Amino acid sequence: MATRSVFIIWLICIGVTFHVAQSAVRHRMTERCRRVWNEVDENNIVAAQAVCNSRATLHDYFRDRKDLLNYEVESSFGADIRLTDNEELANKIIMQAKEDEYRVGFLRPYLFNPARHIFEVLDVIKQSKLFQIIQKMPKGGILHAHDTALCSANYVVSLTYRPDLWQRTSSQNNEIEGFLFSREQPKMPNTNQSDSDDDSQWRLVKDVRDEMGAEKYDEHIRKLFTLFDKNVNPRIQFPDINQVWERFMGLFMKVESILTYAPVWKEYYKHALKEMQEDGVSYLEFRGTLPKLYDLDGNDYNDEDIMEIYIEALDEFKHENPSFIGSKFIYAPLKQVSNETAATYFDVVRRLHVKFPQFLAGFDLVGQEDTAPGLVSFAEHILQLPDDIKFFFHAGETNWFGSVDENLIDAVLLGSHRIGHGYALAKHPKVIDLVKSNDIAVEVNPISNQVLKLVDDYRNHPASVFLAQNVPVVISSDDPSFWEVSPLSHDFYMAFLGIASRHSDLRTLKKFAINSIQYSSLDDTEKTDAFTKWQIKWDKFIEDLVHNEL
Amino acid sequence: MATRSVFIIWLICIGVTFHVAQSAVRHRMTERCRRVWNEVDENNIVAAQAVCNSRATLHDYFRDRKDLLNYEVESSFGADIRLTDNEELANKIIMQAKEDEYRVGFLRPYLFNPARHIFEVLDVIKQSKLFQIIQKMPKGGILHAHDTALCSANYVVSLTYRPDLWQRTSSQNNEIEGFLFSREQPKMPNTNQSDSDDDSQWRLVKDVRDEMGAEKYDEHIRKLFTLFDKNVNPRIQFPDINQVWERFMGLFMKVESILTYAPVWKEYYKHALKEMQEDGVSYLEFRGTLPKLYDLDGNDYNDEDIMEIYIEALDEFKHENPSFIGSKFIYAPLKQVSNETAATYFDVVRRLHVKFPQFLAGFDLVGQEDTAPGLVSFAEHILQLPDDIKFFFHAGETNWFGSVDENLIDAVLLGSHRIGHGYALAKHPKVIDLVKSNDIAVEVNPISNQVLKLVDDYRNHPASVFLAQNVPVVISSDDPSFWEVSPLSHDFYMAFLGIASRHSDLRTLKKFAINSIQYSSLDDTEKTDAFTKWQIKWDKFIEDLVHNEL
Repeated sequence: MATRSVFIIWLICIGVTFHVAQSAVRHRMTERCRRVWNEVDENNIVAAQAVCNSRATLHDYFRDRKDLLNYEVESSFGADIRLTDNEELANKIIMQAKEDEYRVGFLRPYLFNPARHIFEVLDVIKQSKLFQIIQKMPKGGILHAHDTALCSANYVVSLTYRPDLWQRTSSQNNEIEGFLFSREQPKMPNTNQSDSDDDSQWRLVKDVRDEMGAEKYDEHIRKLFTLFDKNVNPRIQFPDINQVWERFMGLFMKVESILTYAPVWKEYYKHALKEMQEDGVSYLEFRGTLPKLYDLDGNDYNDEDIMEIYIEALDEFKHENPSFIGSKFIYAPLKQVSNETAATYFDVVRRLHVKFPQFLAGFDLVGQEDTAPGLVSFAEHILQLPDDIKFFFHAGETNWFGSVDENLIDAVLLGSHRIGHGYALAKHPKVIDLVKSNDIAVEVNPISNQVLKLVDDYRNHPASVFLAQNVPVVISSDDPSFWEVSPLSHDFYMAFLGIASRHSDLRTLKKFAINSIQYSSLDDTEKTDAFTKWQIKWDKFIEDLVHNEL
Repeated sequence: MATRSVFIIWLICIGVTFHVAQSAVRHRMTERCRRVWNEVDENNIVAAQAVCNSRATLHDYFRDRKDLLNYEVESSFGADIRLTDNEELANKIIMQAKEDEYRVGFLRPYLFNPARHIFEVLDVIKQSKLFQIIQKMPKGGILHAHDTALCSANYVVSLTYRPDLWQRTSSQNNEIEGFLFSREQPKMPNTNQSDSDDDSQWRLVKDVRDEMGAEKYDEHIRKLFTLFDKNVNPRIQFPDINQVWERFMGLFMKVESILTYAPVWKEYYKHALKEMQEDGVSYLEFRGTLPKLYDLDGNDYNDEDIMEIYIEALDEFKHENPSFIGSKFIYAPLKQVSNETAATYFDVVRRLHVKFPQFLAGFDLVGQEDTAPGLVSFAEHILQLPDDIKFFFHAGETNWFGSVDENLIDAVLLGSHRIGHGYALAKHPKVIDLVKSNDIAVEVNPISNQVLKLVDDYRNHPASVFLAQNVPVVISSDDPSFWEVSPLSHDFYMAFLGIASRHSDLRTLKKFAINSIQYSSLDDTEKTDAFTKWQIKWDKFIEDLVHNEL
């Protein structure tokens, strides 16, 4: 009993001593600082200590500063990548090239490419050593791109050299309203205009080209296939996002009847894979609307036919290029349609899912988000789809806050495997938590976001925040055809130089590449194969870079 | 013993049953989802559940959607404010006015004022009902503004009507190089030019004005006092941040010799308080460099003299306007100086702190952050200052990431009480944690950030992220004089309409106002008085708004 009393008294003493000691410590702190001690987590304690003690000593300040700077690097995107010795050497070369561009930028921000509009610096970027390195880098796959905006404008122009191509010219302003492949002069107009009985404006492209001279004609029609216009300041070219989107959707319309000609359709896709391969891209997971195809014999091509054309083309391409990983298709029809049309989408995706389980990656809905119905309005249909159809919803491709950006919430709650764009994500911290905990990749398309007027200066792109918070990010290019950039290198360049931190290094670039395979729809076996193919190219890239043979 | 065995078996059974049940649940989830269950915190569980179950039911989806949307509103800035019944009525009017502007913006984004450059919409904003309400709103205090950029350009022009003002005109391009008050034609030039022996270009302003005609002359010199130029597209007016800053610093130089004339100095400050009072602002905590003053008799005015002029002016103003709360001064000299000059700053602030403990709020350093030495280079001096001198460091007023933006880390570790701008803060999530746990307010200056080329569209301003994360934010105006805006209303308008969520309502506006007092340097007694004065005005504002008497 006596022992027990002593023990209790001893316990009380310890308690009091501890309390007194703690009070003494706390007494030195202000009210404001006391709160800190109650709230910060372990990682913050050192830093918070420095803040809260009346004044930090110089020694403590420099120690905490180093810790905090280090913590930022080590908790950000790419920090989990461990570089080999060879990669460390390559990293030095890359960081030197990056630092060279920073140095110019600090002196004259106007000369820092990511501070400019892409259209202003297309020529300058070609000279960038960093860009040239990135071009050669095996970048993995493109996970966000659209069916008819994949190939270079030059290639699209080259398609107009095919026989049997007609153009319809407006009698009012002499503008080209559309194209059509046809054995004879088309009877029906290729537009919805009211003067539809007037077919005299259909002329063979060959004739018009001969008349104008090929160079002049090609320059003329090239403008129809891209947003780039060297004669206009791109910052004031379009007054707002709706107007650039109107022009942008017009581009899809203009190229459609050239590309939906069945023989071209297949070649266009194969050529896209070729351009990607040449740009260091080995995999493509693309969105498509499955538009109706046509040929000179009046044949019909239904959705399944188009899928088969894709698969045939892909097989041919892979046969010719065995190091290429592959391609999958996300059925992604337009959002802005009637309820009846929308209902048919879900039948289509069900059918395709059964018939093409390997090639079909999943489902998405596309269109300008600001003016389209939200995902919520399709929720009933979406949630009735079979469990194994994956979703890759566009969401948060907007500057608005508290309206259409809430598609981000729907994308996550509807179970999206990746999010297309996610530009508005930084405004939704709880959704960022969910994206991270659910391991949902965000498909960031830097150049698309600038050209389509979401952001002016790449340094303001919210993906900086994603990278700082280590959100799973993949970099993609959306519609490289329409902004005259390479399939992926320009977007990698802007992401690495303009969006990522100055400290971000080869680990970030490597992680971008790895993520593009990791978060693809390749199954486990395919992924193993993909990583093997990519690693071979990666090792060679590093070797060449280190030995100055790029 | 038997009982004990039964109990143990019963326990085992429960354990097995629980394990089996849990396995069954988990079996339904994919590998990806299983991770979620291990990682999410309580708040996320409901949402994560919906994601992870193979497909959510429509019912669960809508329930989680509502929960998540609600969570976002209730965890964001201003959510802790409870509105009175009268305020609820006022809120309806305000939200209607806000929604009216959204409706136009959704239809034509170009007509949404926060999507435009402030210089393009100065006239349009005057017609905005929301802006008119905000003008009348008691907005509390301005916590971030600079000594010689407070008053309207019109007022600065009016100062040039004073007698004895001379202007120095360049003989080469006829441009005005400077002003000086003097009884006689100044002997010395007011510039550093080499042709300093040529004093023939000094002329009385009165004479030049008479010659040119007052209207033309005033229009001419007005351009010297503001960045606004109606003849130039503001988006392309300055190619980069360095060039706009060069012009911006030039404005300070141009007005300096008008304002540092001692009799004007005092009146300028008083007039600033008057303009603020008329704009619904009752408190000013401003930064100043304490430039040398002069008068017609060749008197010297040292730092203490200037402080006394401020205090005298403030006393007079408060006497004439008893509902005005007050003003304090942050000594904030230029960063870009020699080490010797920098060393003197710390002596000055020590002296002023002893002599003017009430009026001096604390210390800061100013100048273009991108080109100035970082806070770290002043750390040794800073940390030696007495514990009770507060810091209000500018930090993160930049688009760079991983370089000068790291001033944010220094600001926090050096113990800053507030952070000036903090524009780059969203790129530093750990620093956001520290800012929140240390209760450091971020002084956001929306219009300054646009005019000085950090951001183009207010909807891209990173303060959206701060508000979503409930960072302590105050809204301020930096240098309203130079961008032709009201002392605070325009910044409140852009913050509320362009930066905050569409859901943000009167609670956000009220919190902006409350924070401006809460995070001021007023002591506890002064704060009580300040809140009392503000509350009287606030109640009247709500009353007037509800009864349509604004």
